[in-house]
Amino acid sequence: MGMVRFGVSLEKDLLTKFDRLIKEKGHANRSKALSDIVRQELVKKEWVEGKEVAGSVIMIYDHHKRELVNKLMDIQHDFNKIIMSTQHIHLDHDNCLEIIAIKGASLQVQKLADFLKAVKGIKHITLGMSSTGKGI
Amino acid sequence: MGMVRFGVSLEKDLLTKFDRLIKEKGHANRSKALSDIVRQELVKKEWVEGKEVAGSVIMIYDHHKRELVNKLMDIQHDFNKIIMSTQHIHLDHDNCLEIIAIKGASLQVQKLADFLKAVKGIKHITLGMSSTGKGI
Amino acid sequence: MGMVRFGVSLEKDLLTKFDRLIKEKGHANRSKALSDIVRQELVKKEWVEGKEVAGSVIMIYDHHKRELVNKLMDIQHDFNKIIMSTQHIHLDHDNCLEIIAIKGASLQVQKLADFLKAVKGIKHITLGMSSTGKGI
Amino acid sequence: MGMVRFGVSLEKDLLTKFDRLIKEKGHANRSKALSDIVRQELVKKEWVEGKEVAGSVIMIYDHHKRELVNKLMDIQHDFNKIIMSTQHIHLDHDNCLEIIAIKGASLQVQKLADFLKAVKGIKHITLGMSSTGKGI
Repeated sequence: MGMVRFGVSLEKDLLTKFDRLIKEKGHANRSKALSDIVRQELVKKEWVEGKEVAGSVIMIYDHHKRELVNKLMDIQHDFNKIIMSTQHIHLDHDNCLEIIAIKGASLQVQKLADFLKAVKGIKHITLGMSSTGKGI
Repeated sequence: MGMVRFGVSLEKDLLTKFDRLIKEKGHANRSKALSDIVRQELVKKEWVEGKEVAGSVIMIYDHHKRELVNKLMDIQHDFNKIIMSTQHIHLDHDNCLEIIAIKGASLQVQKLADFLKAVKGIKHITLGMSSTGKGI
Repeated sequence: MGMVRFGVSLEKDLLTKFDRLIKEKGHANRSKALSDIVRQELVKKEWVEGKEVAGSVIMIYDHHKRELVNKLMDIQHDFNKIIMSTQHIHLDHDNCLEIIAIKGASLQVQKLADFLKAVKGIKHITLGMSSTGKGI
Repeated sequence: MGMVRFGVSLEKDLLTKFDRLIKEKGHANRSKALSDIVRQELVKKEWVEGKEVAGSVIMIYDHHKRELVNKLMDIQHDFNKIIMSTQHIHLDHDNCLEIIAIKGASLQVQKLADFLKAVKGIKHITLGMSSTGKGI
């Protein structure tokens, strides 16, 4: 429902290369490839422009570090409005993978990541930048 | 335990700017800043070199799309060896945020993301690239 | 000459957003936007896959550093097969901007940049990654 | 002149990995590696914060396209205050590589690139983001 069909033109040679790219990336067809590309751009824009976004904050840490776990908990509670839930994996005897699902203004998410990053004992923090789906 | 202290030298002017960066990013001190930078490089290397990695695959999709949910489930089961668990958030009436915690060879993770991306109805897929913590 | 016209379909809402993106980025029309996107992907692929590429190596350095200028010259002569020409700007009393136009295998270009980066006194090196135009 | 020596500490294991990275990237020593890393961060900041920057705008185009060359010339003259010089390489019978050396506010440079990108017949535009050397 709600699909619009329209025509575009590409140089013949470029179209051949586009079709090869589509095949390599496993897209079903040109329309699917185009919609993926457009959505990818829209998600980037949402993050840059400070819109409401969704995604994850991913942390690796050694849970043996003193006070670490409590500090991470405290910080997360300060940001409870943008944290939906967390998922915790015991990677090995020492290392934890914690994935925080977030939904909120991109600047707030960045701030949360910065606060967590500053905690002693955190080995790695990264953001998984996705979207609430509403704007894409 | 196991900390090594060593000396480095920077141009005076550059050191001032380094200290300003540290303050802006909320690092505790120069040592913490340096260890973060080194670890960040090591994580990048693990992904590029096909090492065992950890992190997340993040998807946004509209669960009303026919067959979508079943296909996503089937693909995930084919990759059950690298999937630890998944976390599902009902973003609104239509949109789902699904965060798959993964641990495995980076090429396998990439392949999983490619398969999921090809499913009709997926709005956005992105990787949260982190580490098992062992190599960093 | 050599243009092929074909149809694609997007969800109505997504097409509206695509058109807004096109306007913001100053593209003439949907076809121009699509061809830019496809070419951007092809250029990335050329660099990753070690194809013949073109572009620039950009350096900032302080020419007062002893031996620096001679070393940069020596290294560049070792790579004369991939260096087309250089452009030199006297930024101020101390700082030089040197832009080396290159055409060659991407790994060779990377190697040239690494050798130059290792020279004492170089402040910044970066690559401008473009294409020979043949493959895009 | 003007070097400051100071101590930092890293976990023993992490230091070993840092030293391996340094060797792989061809840095002379830990101090050189650290100063490169800090400068890289400072250059990124200059571009994001709209500071005065230097670098290049790199274009690939087919000079047979009608009106293209004149339009590119007109646009560049409108930006003559931030353009220092240009370098032109005849890549093959059709394709040109043109490298514009720039120095100016990062937003102006971005605007120049956007205007050039919108010209019909341009195959690829990319920025080589460096620094005036003053702030790094």
